[in-house]
Amino acid sequence: MQTNFEKIFHPQRIAVVGVSTEGTGFGSGIVYSLNAMGFAGQIFLVNPKGGELNGTPILPSVADIPGTIDLAIIAVQARAVPEVLEVCRQKGAAGAEIFSSGFKELGTDEGILLERQIVQIANRGIRVIGPNCFGIYCPKSGLTVLPGPDLSRESGPVGFLSQSGGMAIDFANTGKSIGLRFSKMVSYGNGADLRETELLRYLADDPETGVITLYIEGIADGDAFFAAIREAARKKPVIVYKGGLSDAGARAVQSHTASMGGSRRIWQSLLRQVKAVQVRSLPEMSQAALAFATLPARPFRQISVLGGGGALGVAAADAAEPFGLRIPPFEPALSRRIEGILPRPGSSAGNPVDVANPFVPPKVLKEVLLMAAEDPRIELQIFISLLSHYKNMARLAGQPVKTVAPYRELAADFKAVADQTGKPVVIVLPNPRRGLDHLDVVEMIALARQVFMDHGIAVFDDLHEALRAIGHLNAYYEGVAHE
Amino acid sequence: MQTNFEKIFHPQRIAVVGVSTEGTGFGSGIVYSLNAMGFAGQIFLVNPKGGELNGTPILPSVADIPGTIDLAIIAVQARAVPEVLEVCRQKGAAGAEIFSSGFKELGTDEGILLERQIVQIANRGIRVIGPNCFGIYCPKSGLTVLPGPDLSRESGPVGFLSQSGGMAIDFANTGKSIGLRFSKMVSYGNGADLRETELLRYLADDPETGVITLYIEGIADGDAFFAAIREAARKKPVIVYKGGLSDAGARAVQSHTASMGGSRRIWQSLLRQVKAVQVRSLPEMSQAALAFATLPARPFRQISVLGGGGALGVAAADAAEPFGLRIPPFEPALSRRIEGILPRPGSSAGNPVDVANPFVPPKVLKEVLLMAAEDPRIELQIFISLLSHYKNMARLAGQPVKTVAPYRELAADFKAVADQTGKPVVIVLPNPRRGLDHLDVVEMIALARQVFMDHGIAVFDDLHEALRAIGHLNAYYEGVAHE
Repeated sequence: MQTNFEKIFHPQRIAVVGVSTEGTGFGSGIVYSLNAMGFAGQIFLVNPKGGELNGTPILPSVADIPGTIDLAIIAVQARAVPEVLEVCRQKGAAGAEIFSSGFKELGTDEGILLERQIVQIANRGIRVIGPNCFGIYCPKSGLTVLPGPDLSRESGPVGFLSQSGGMAIDFANTGKSIGLRFSKMVSYGNGADLRETELLRYLADDPETGVITLYIEGIADGDAFFAAIREAARKKPVIVYKGGLSDAGARAVQSHTASMGGSRRIWQSLLRQVKAVQVRSLPEMSQAALAFATLPARPFRQISVLGGGGALGVAAADAAEPFGLRIPPFEPALSRRIEGILPRPGSSAGNPVDVANPFVPPKVLKEVLLMAAEDPRIELQIFISLLSHYKNMARLAGQPVKTVAPYRELAADFKAVADQTGKPVVIVLPNPRRGLDHLDVVEMIALARQVFMDHGIAVFDDLHEALRAIGHLNAYYEGVAHE
Repeated sequence: MQTNFEKIFHPQRIAVVGVSTEGTGFGSGIVYSLNAMGFAGQIFLVNPKGGELNGTPILPSVADIPGTIDLAIIAVQARAVPEVLEVCRQKGAAGAEIFSSGFKELGTDEGILLERQIVQIANRGIRVIGPNCFGIYCPKSGLTVLPGPDLSRESGPVGFLSQSGGMAIDFANTGKSIGLRFSKMVSYGNGADLRETELLRYLADDPETGVITLYIEGIADGDAFFAAIREAARKKPVIVYKGGLSDAGARAVQSHTASMGGSRRIWQSLLRQVKAVQVRSLPEMSQAALAFATLPARPFRQISVLGGGGALGVAAADAAEPFGLRIPPFEPALSRRIEGILPRPGSSAGNPVDVANPFVPPKVLKEVLLMAAEDPRIELQIFISLLSHYKNMARLAGQPVKTVAPYRELAADFKAVADQTGKPVVIVLPNPRRGLDHLDVVEMIALARQVFMDHGIAVFDDLHEALRAIGHLNAYYEGVAHE
C-alpha cells in the first residue's frame, strides 16, 4: 500500500485527539497553532469528556467524526495511543502525528510494548510520525510543529528532518530570524514507523524542496540511509548534522531518542562518499542552508571582501583560507581606481578593500563593487556593512537609527550590482551593540536583514560564518561535478 | 625619563586639538564623548580659527592654555601634527593620542617622514599613542576611544591593547553587551612610539587589570614582545588574538597598519611556550575574557550540563570533548533522585540532564543543580536556559514575555547554588528568536543577561562558546601550574 504523502503534508480534514477544555493543554495549543498558521481545512476536536473549545464541539471519539479524515494529531496519554491510532486508521487517515511521549525512549517494558503496538497498527496502512515528537511544519498547508504558532507562514526551499523536536523548533525559529524559509519540516521523535530514510527519499523527489537538511542522532538502517543520501545528493544538496559523535554525545543520544550513535570518523568518511555536506552545529546548518537557498548553484572560489574596518579585512583573509576560498589581490591599476573614489587617508583597495569608515555613501560603495567585479577572477563579492555605527550618527542627527542607516539604498544598489555583473553579493552585518541600551540598533539590524533578504541578498551575522557557508556550497557543487 | 602612565590614563587637564565649531568633526566628537563618559577634569579646546563650542572658548594654540596639561588629544591634518605635538610636549603633557591618519600606513615618502618626526619629538619626553588610532578607553577616568560616547562607564578587570581602532570599538561594544568591563583599552594604530611590548608590561603590573587581551597584527620586536608576554602571563592571564596568520591575512595586515605578520605555526608555538591563550576571532576573545573575568582562578575539567532539550545535551557532550572537558555520567542512584523531581516522561538525568521542557520552575531547577553538585567529580555546572520559549507562555497569559520569564528567580537560585556548593554555575542563554516580531524576546534575553551578570553568573549565547571559553581557562591555569 502506497503512502499518501500528499494527504499527510497537505491534509484537508484533521482530527486533533486529546483536546482539553481548559485551554492550556497540548491539544488546544495545537488547534490554536493551526489557526494561527492559517490552516484552511476542517479541524475535528476529540476528547472522551466532550464539551467545547471556543464554540467548537469536542467529539467523544474519532469514530464520531462525520466522513473520513486525512491526518490525525494525537496528544493523549501513552497508554491510550494504540486504540486511538487504530480508530484513526479506520477513519481513512493517511497518517498520524503522535506527540505523546512515554514509549521506547523510557526503556521500560511498558513503553517498548506500546511502541510495538503502534508499529503493528502502522503496518496496516496508517503512517505514523512519532511518537515523542513535535510533528510536521508545512507553511503551505498550515501545519506547524508544536509549539509553533508563530513560525513563518511563508514557504521556501528548505526541507528538514529531525528526530529531536527541540532542534526542529529551534531551527524553525532561527530560520525565521535569518530569512530561511521551509518547504516541509518533520520532527519524527522515536521514528517508530516513518523516519530518516523514507522521509529523505520523499524530500529528494519533492519539487517544493530545493535543499535537504537533516539532524540525525541515530539511524535505523545504515546501508539504506546512506544509499538514500547518495541518491538525494545527486538531485539536490543534502546537509547533515549528526549529533552524538563524541563518547559523551553518544551516551546523551541514547537517553534522548533511544537510538545508537556511531563513530566520528566513520560518519565523516561515509558522508563525504555520498556527497553530503557535514555540519557540526545548528548555526552552521542554518548558515549553510542559507547559502544553498540564496546563491546560484555553482562553486565560488575567488572572492572579493569589502567593507569598513581594516581589521575586518585581516579577519576575512584569515578566515577564507581554511575554507578553500581565495581573495586574490587586485591589479595595481584597479586598486588605484577604487582608491580614487574612496575617502583618503584610511582606505586601501588591494582586496580585501578597506573603505575607511562606516559612513561611505551607498552610491560610492556601489561604484566600488562594480569596479571590483571587473577583475575577471572574482566570482562573488562579500560586503561587511558596519551599519551599527550609524547609532552615533543618529544621535548627532537626533533621529532614530532605523531612519538614519541607509540599508534600503544599500540593498537596492547591491542588488543592481549583482544583476549587472552576474556576480552575487553577500552581506555580513555584524552587530556588537546588543545590550539593553542598543535595542534600537538590534531592531535596525533586523529591519536591514529583512530588506536585504527581500532583495535576494543573503545576510550573515559574521564573516567567518559566511565564508564557512560558501565553503560548504563549493564542496558540494565541486564534489557533484567531479562524480 | 620615566613615562608617567598615571597622567596618561587618568589625566586632569586635557587639550583637544582640532576642534571645529561646526560640531560634527572628530574634535568636537571627542569633547562630546569625554563629557558623556563623565570626564571630570578640565578640557581645553584648540583650533587656530578660534571661536567657541557650546559656550566654551576655542583657543588658537596649545600655547595659549594657562598652565600645564597632562594629555593631548590631537585630531588635526597629518601635516600639522608634529608642530602641535611639540607644543604639547612643552606644555608638560605626559602623552598625546594622535587620531589623525596619513602617516606611515600610506606608504608615501611624506607619510613616513611625518611619522619619523613624531618619533623624534616623542623621544624628547612626550609619549605618543598612534597616529592613525582611536586612543584610550578608561572608564574610571572618563577617557574613551573614538567614536565611543556610549561605551560602558563601569570599570572592570579586562585590559585590551589593539593596533586596530575598529577592533577596539567592536570589542568595547561587544563587552558592554555581554557584561565584560574594562580597566584600560588602548588602540595604538601605527604604534610610532608606545606599542604592544611596553603597554603590555604596564598592564602586567597594573592592579586594575586582572586579565590582559591583545589584538596583534604585527610586532616591532619579537623577542621583547614574547619575553613581555611570558612575564605578564606569570602574573595574570594573557589572551592573544593574532590577525593575519594566513597569506591573504598577512597582505591585509600590511595595508592596514603597515606592519609585518608572521607564520601561523611559529605564532602558535611561541604563544604556547609563553603560556598565552590564543584565540582566533573577536567573539572567541570576548568569551574567553568573560570566563577569566567571572570564574574562579582554577581549571574545571569535569562538569555537569543541564537544561531543556535532549538535543542540547547531545550537542553539549559533542562540544565538550574537543576542549578537554568531561561530562561524567552520574551514579544511577543520583540520576534516579534527580529524575524523581523532574517532569516525567521526557526528562533524563544521566549527565547531561534533560529537564524535559523549558517551563520547569526555578525552585525545582535549583534542587536539581544542588543534587548534581553532590557528585564529587563535578567542578562546574552549565545550565542551558531556554527562556525564549516563554514567548508562547506570555501569549497565553496575555502578558509581556519579560514579565513572564522567571530570570530573576533563576539568577537568585543559581547564585545560591554556586555559593552553597562552591561550584560555579554558568548560564547558556540561546535565542533563536531574533527577528522583527521577536524583539520582545531579544529585550527579555538582554534583561536576563543583565540580571545574571549582576549575580556574578557568566552568560554565554551558545553552549559551544561557553565550553571553548572554559577550555581556555583550563589551558591557562593548568599550564601555569605545571611551570
